[in-house]
Amino acid sequence: MEKYINEKTEVTNALLQLIAHIPTDSLSVVVEPRFFQKISDENFMRIAVFLAQKGYTEGGCPIGGVIIDNATRQILGKGHNTLVQENHPYNHGETSAIRDAGRIDFSKTTIFTTLSPCDVCATLIYMRQFNRVVVGDITNASGNERVLGDKGIQVDILEDAMGIELYKKYREKYPKLDLEDWKGLAAVIKLDKK
Amino acid sequence: MEKYINEKTEVTNALLQLIAHIPTDSLSVVVEPRFFQKISDENFMRIAVFLAQKGYTEGGCPIGGVIIDNATRQILGKGHNTLVQENHPYNHGETSAIRDAGRIDFSKTTIFTTLSPCDVCATLIYMRQFNRVVVGDITNASGNERVLGDKGIQVDILEDAMGIELYKKYREKYPKLDLEDWKGLAAVIKLDKK
Repeated sequence: MEKYINEKTEVTNALLQLIAHIPTDSLSVVVEPRFFQKISDENFMRIAVFLAQKGYTEGGCPIGGVIIDNATRQILGKGHNTLVQENHPYNHGETSAIRDAGRIDFSKTTIFTTLSPCDVCATLIYMRQFNRVVVGDITNASGNERVLGDKGIQVDILEDAMGIELYKKYREKYPKLDLEDWKGLAAVIKLDKK
Repeated sequence: MEKYINEKTEVTNALLQLIAHIPTDSLSVVVEPRFFQKISDENFMRIAVFLAQKGYTEGGCPIGGVIIDNATRQILGKGHNTLVQENHPYNHGETSAIRDAGRIDFSKTTIFTTLSPCDVCATLIYMRQFNRVVVGDITNASGNERVLGDKGIQVDILEDAMGIELYKKYREKYPKLDLEDWKGLAAVIKLDKK
């Protein structure tokens, strides 16, 4: 039986949204390996944006991440920020995707993140020796691209207009949640006391 | 009904081990708040060591962490490394305890860690604005104490002989697991190729 998603399947936004919602372990069951060969960097970034959208719909911070194998381009890990959903003080888009990937050799992988990584995620990315980082939004935040480059990691900027718009909307609507996500609840309490 | 663990309860190693094994949310149910007032820094570090011991018994890396409120000295979060147990590439002693604590104001807390923090944990500790870090082992590893001090965090060294001995034994027995825990599976694969 040929798998439902295969080489002939047309790549549309609706399909990329579907892939974002399929658990990583299930992808190898329902997607032909060769399908991923035709998936572009822009497509993977859009999958990450759909994960960010999923997080936002759940009431959380809209940041997503996707990790692929550089050779096969298969998805090895993905996830989104769960500060609200899991009461988790540092599960960002990147940490979520890395947790999902588990104990693998990250030196042969690329991580797509919808937003420029924070200090913790940037540190984790070089400590786990990622080969490449693709950043989907340096409009709403930026800063660690050079740190990662200095560590010998290939850093590419590939902005996604849908992701940028989503994050901007969220930040305007929930500024305190955004502050907590970056700097912790301590920063929100300090701000409230002023 | 007075709670089982109260002011009159004698503080012994066996009791500290019991506390290490009680889920954080249950501690307020079975321990009188005033009990924690008589618990010393050395006691909290020993609880962290018993968490490290728990991790080692499970087949994992023996590193534990405990977070307390500076004023009440109640335990707000605790945990241990779960690289093996959860197939989790960065759940160290500190990240585990912080995850357990959830969305709280860390600026009024102290984190006890049985081992000198790695770059990721050190970054997370200052990003979440901890007030104080107590390190239980700078014999087997060290390096980020000054980084944390420079960020304005109070750093105290309080070595625990039992924890140091445990980590030393583990490192001798499982050197590759130790390498993976610090530098990722990529580092182990590079070493194997040599």
